Amino acid sequence: MGEIEELKAEIRKFADARDWEIFHTPKNLSMAIAGEAGELVAEFQWLTADESAKNSLSEAQKIAIGLEVADVAIYLLRLADVLGINLEEVVRAKLKINEGRFPTQD
Amino acid sequence: MGEIEELKAEIRKFADARDWEIFHTPKNLSMAIAGEAGELVAEFQWLTADESAKNSLSEAQKIAIGLEVADVAIYLLRLADVLGINLEEVVRAKLKINEGRFPTQD
Amino acid sequence: MGEIEELKAEIRKFADARDWEIFHTPKNLSMAIAGEAGELVAEFQWLTADESAKNSLSEAQKIAIGLEVADVAIYLLRLADVLGINLEEVVRAKLKINEGRFPTQD
Amino acid sequence: MGEIEELKAEIRKFADARDWEIFHTPKNLSMAIAGEAGELVAEFQWLTADESAKNSLSEAQKIAIGLEVADVAIYLLRLADVLGINLEEVVRAKLKINEGRFPTQD
Repeated sequence: MGEIEELKAEIRKFADARDWEIFHTPKNLSMAIAGEAGELVAEFQWLTADESAKNSLSEAQKIAIGLEVADVAIYLLRLADVLGINLEEVVRAKLKINEGRFPTQD
Repeated sequence: MGEIEELKAEIRKFADARDWEIFHTPKNLSMAIAGEAGELVAEFQWLTADESAKNSLSEAQKIAIGLEVADVAIYLLRLADVLGINLEEVVRAKLKINEGRFPTQD
Repeated sequence: MGEIEELKAEIRKFADARDWEIFHTPKNLSMAIAGEAGELVAEFQWLTADESAKNSLSEAQKIAIGLEVADVAIYLLRLADVLGINLEEVVRAKLKINEGRFPTQD
Repeated sequence: MGEIEELKAEIRKFADARDWEIFHTPKNLSMAIAGEAGELVAEFQWLTADESAKNSLSEAQKIAIGLEVADVAIYLLRLADVLGINLEEVVRAKLKINEGRFPTQD
């Protein structure tokens, strides 16, 4: 089993142990993703582009950002699990589409 | 190299081939994640909880949702790559924190 | 009737004429606000801070941004209407709270 | 001066007294709107449609939701002020467009 499926399984186990399946409808999970994405964007809202760069962020900021990234990832993996979406597959499919929309010069 | 690092590398290659590094500041990427999360939530906004379930969605809806999930994933992987965040690690760290916050009965 | 109540009434009339009350639950309206906020943030995601300034935006950008601002406002007014929230009152209450949190020097 | 212009002026005064103009670029304000919209959607994410209805919400929930609505409104009014957007005008323009897109039967 690959890393992504392993993470999905751990998150599923976490939710099941708390009887959260009833809350984890795709609709609600999409809301949770939007909510966590809002917290992630809030980490950056008053920083300049330069201040947001890897080498400018403090360790505390990096930890806070890492945990917000994790929150988005957890709900995204959970939604993919609940809907039976293969994340690797859809990411590659979307990159393929984007290649057609944004061709390179050569 | 695991799946997640492979996806990060493919997305990095895609961005580099288009000279998009200058646009892909952490600040801008957090905005792109919020924007794509907004499109994902919009897929579900007028559906009931039941209508959003895996077995109720049409094939067309599943494809549209899968592509929005991919868009969020792509920018999330890109942000993790740009900031040097190990996604697996932060997801597991956050699940650990959540275990403390939401203990199970036994 | 003040401007805000007038706008609420126009939006209510618009929704009622289309039998949209059933879709306009507070939950769904909060999703619509998040979705439209995502479209608004997307207008700015690849612009620098300077490029996002009033005098740097093209007329076409200003129109696009104005319409996204309108979309957020419409759903926000609709949610306030459905929940019986007095927008003026809550804005002033929140500014009062913020004054306590962010005191000025003098 | 109408209510909306009065609120804009109060929010402007609040920001000016704290020298926040430098932070309040349109780009940053769009991020703040997305962040606050994320907090608003989070208030509703685990509620059913019925639980989100006006008569089902507790007083505490209504207060929390009202303050999140206020946060979105404050940054939306601030963005409109900074960009010189007439909110009433764009809302009416967008409703006009929507009338064309969603005609009624009669």
